[in-house]
Amino acid sequence: MKSTLAQLPKGMRDLHPAMIQRRRYMLDLLAERFRRYGFVPLETPALEQLTTLTGKYGAEGEQLLFKVLNSGNFPGKLQDDLRTLSPSVAAHQLCEKGLRYDLTIPLARYVAQQAHGLTFPFRRYQIQPVWRADRPQRGRYREFYQCDIDVIGAPSPFVEAEMLALVDEVFSALGLEDYRLLVNHRAILGALAEAAGAPHLAGTLARALDKRDKVPEDKMIEDLTESGFSSDALEKMAWIYAMPQGFAAQLAEVEGYLGALRQGAMAAARLRALQTHLTSFAFPAEKLVLAPTLARGMDYYTGLLFEAVIPASGLGSLGGGGRYDDLASLFGVAGMTGVGFSFGLERIYDLLEERNLFPTEDSSTPRLLLVPLEESTLPATIEQLTHLRGQGIAAELLPPTDPLRKSLRYAAKKKIPWVALHGGQEKTQGKVTLRDMEQGTQEMISWADLPTHIDRA
Amino acid sequence: MKSTLAQLPKGMRDLHPAMIQRRRYMLDLLAERFRRYGFVPLETPALEQLTTLTGKYGAEGEQLLFKVLNSGNFPGKLQDDLRTLSPSVAAHQLCEKGLRYDLTIPLARYVAQQAHGLTFPFRRYQIQPVWRADRPQRGRYREFYQCDIDVIGAPSPFVEAEMLALVDEVFSALGLEDYRLLVNHRAILGALAEAAGAPHLAGTLARALDKRDKVPEDKMIEDLTESGFSSDALEKMAWIYAMPQGFAAQLAEVEGYLGALRQGAMAAARLRALQTHLTSFAFPAEKLVLAPTLARGMDYYTGLLFEAVIPASGLGSLGGGGRYDDLASLFGVAGMTGVGFSFGLERIYDLLEERNLFPTEDSSTPRLLLVPLEESTLPATIEQLTHLRGQGIAAELLPPTDPLRKSLRYAAKKKIPWVALHGGQEKTQGKVTLRDMEQGTQEMISWADLPTHIDRA
Repeated sequence: MKSTLAQLPKGMRDLHPAMIQRRRYMLDLLAERFRRYGFVPLETPALEQLTTLTGKYGAEGEQLLFKVLNSGNFPGKLQDDLRTLSPSVAAHQLCEKGLRYDLTIPLARYVAQQAHGLTFPFRRYQIQPVWRADRPQRGRYREFYQCDIDVIGAPSPFVEAEMLALVDEVFSALGLEDYRLLVNHRAILGALAEAAGAPHLAGTLARALDKRDKVPEDKMIEDLTESGFSSDALEKMAWIYAMPQGFAAQLAEVEGYLGALRQGAMAAARLRALQTHLTSFAFPAEKLVLAPTLARGMDYYTGLLFEAVIPASGLGSLGGGGRYDDLASLFGVAGMTGVGFSFGLERIYDLLEERNLFPTEDSSTPRLLLVPLEESTLPATIEQLTHLRGQGIAAELLPPTDPLRKSLRYAAKKKIPWVALHGGQEKTQGKVTLRDMEQGTQEMISWADLPTHIDRA
Repeated sequence: MKSTLAQLPKGMRDLHPAMIQRRRYMLDLLAERFRRYGFVPLETPALEQLTTLTGKYGAEGEQLLFKVLNSGNFPGKLQDDLRTLSPSVAAHQLCEKGLRYDLTIPLARYVAQQAHGLTFPFRRYQIQPVWRADRPQRGRYREFYQCDIDVIGAPSPFVEAEMLALVDEVFSALGLEDYRLLVNHRAILGALAEAAGAPHLAGTLARALDKRDKVPEDKMIEDLTESGFSSDALEKMAWIYAMPQGFAAQLAEVEGYLGALRQGAMAAARLRALQTHLTSFAFPAEKLVLAPTLARGMDYYTGLLFEAVIPASGLGSLGGGGRYDDLASLFGVAGMTGVGFSFGLERIYDLLEERNLFPTEDSSTPRLLLVPLEESTLPATIEQLTHLRGQGIAAELLPPTDPLRKSLRYAAKKKIPWVALHGGQEKTQGKVTLRDMEQGTQEMISWADLPTHIDRA
């Protein structure tokens, strides 16, 4: 009797109870750590002005924006114009609003709008769904959660170190101890291009290196040669593929090859400051990897760059971020430096599930089902139900209209571990028959003993 | 320097930290009570097929649906057709998706879609934002949260009683002890019309009575007379305006006037069963009011109707619901009876704020600011910071780049109650100077004593 009328748009899904419970565990853990680090929550509306969103996500992102039709006067006189307008102009005539595409642009809009009232450094976290008209794939949806932390208005490298300490605390608390934090500085990418005699090709180089996991090395070299890098220049860069183990050694390598260049020296100094602060934070040194090829798209980052990965997992990034210097300038407010990190929530969720790292206790189903066996025991059973719920026990009652086997089947299907049967005999003795659904055993006990019994694992 | 570029669409707002904290308190309290009553969480996507939403909310509601422009091929060849289509047809050509308008239709869609896999009775709660293109007003937004509980597939009046017991527990736990629960049965409205000799006008009567708080009595009588009720008939109805105190007396009154009619007798029996179960639930009798005029729009309710109000508040409904019998039939699945209650979350929030019923502790700001007074004490201060955060204390650190007064101003503006100053002198003694921001006093204490100190209210 599945209805053909009832369907979801493609790329959309319902979140079922057990899933919501696991997500909540993850989000509560994150929020609690954010709170300890002095971050406060912010929520922005699902709908933003389309002008706030357009021109921010590149041509590809622009295509993926969900636009919301103007209400009220649509299409009215506009309809006549539509015929002659280009598709994208027509869409903007019809739509003044769009759905949230990420949490970064809404933050920039918020900071610009509230610049007067906010106290800087402003530290906020934000966990909300975003929408993208991406081609749906297995495990990839058009509605998904993002989770961002940002500190706006704090130039000290202390802030980057603190953020990485927080990232470490979150991954460790989730049980993902084998994650690694890749770190780079945007100026290293510039210095690399400079050392190769092609400072004007820094962007091209960064984009090529950023894809290095996805593109075979010879193909990459071919592309870079085509872009204008000499084979001599590319050879000078070979050291970045053979980095030593350990952050200190890696940093020494960078300083050795790039320290003589202004950009290289600056980046190395910043990385050294980061390392010093991380030591104070007792950040586990073995988790830190200096990755001169890390570029993170580069769009708005201006300083340090981070990316969390689990090398063994075969997954991509589990989160990333860096320092940016003029995000709010998009909205007319200049000179605001910021550091951000975005957790790849959906990927982390999948990984926790795959590794069985969610708490096993299933609070998405009640612990106990009460079954009054006859109409006459219903009132007393309701009284016990109320009493048990008052103690925080999740419990249900099925009224005695159904045969017992139906009630037991209900408990079995819902995976309710305990069923309490309350008939005339039990009532006379002031007791209840407690059935262990897994064992299939049952015994008569006093109501007072029931909470202790069902507490057993 | 407020940016004119950064603006929100009308009717949209950002939720600030203190607000989010208070909402979370309220939502956590609700979710915990729902869990105890055996309800499990469900979340549906923000976007539904437009066909799922249209034709469900009446002509007025239909106007308020936010429609989402098809992505990809828009408008392509459609553009040519648009000129000749009527506005509403054109909108449907352009938009296959719409934003969630309430939580009831998504539930009906979900139940119809999952009918095979669900275990009935199915008890779910859902707390999510909905979007309506309503005219924005003070305190009324185009994005707001709804909170619904429903039990699908349980015909017993026990379910209505249990739901009201849960409603009572929620309002009591929130501190809103002076709320009242109005109860009615749809058949009473039918019986009233029948008793007045106009059974065919039951709908008209229900709609008129439902507005009785907003329309003067003589205007209502005038309207009903115009609709075809004789003055004699209206006189026969006068008793509903002079109901006695107390649910038992009210029920006796209804039975006296309507008990001889089939619909009246049926409704009275159902109300009596409700009363019996509520007694078992120890539901406080004085909070229950039989309100023969309560109609709740009537659109899909078929049995008992509820509404929570605080008579003294001057506010309208704080929530309401009732039994409906064929919601899923909208999606081709027939014969599913359900009972639902929707909490008026935004109004309850305003009321809790007005009455100062939110917890006073403000966890939206950290408890402590650490200020290393010189560069040399920064590492040791970071170590203490990590240690304090490890104990669950929300704390921040400002690096010693700023003058002290700037750090103190930061703490004051953010309402951080304690500031810990750590200079060379403190470090030598292994201590810290703790400043009480409210009192303006400070004393040197050991780091070990700090958590106890800042725990004071």
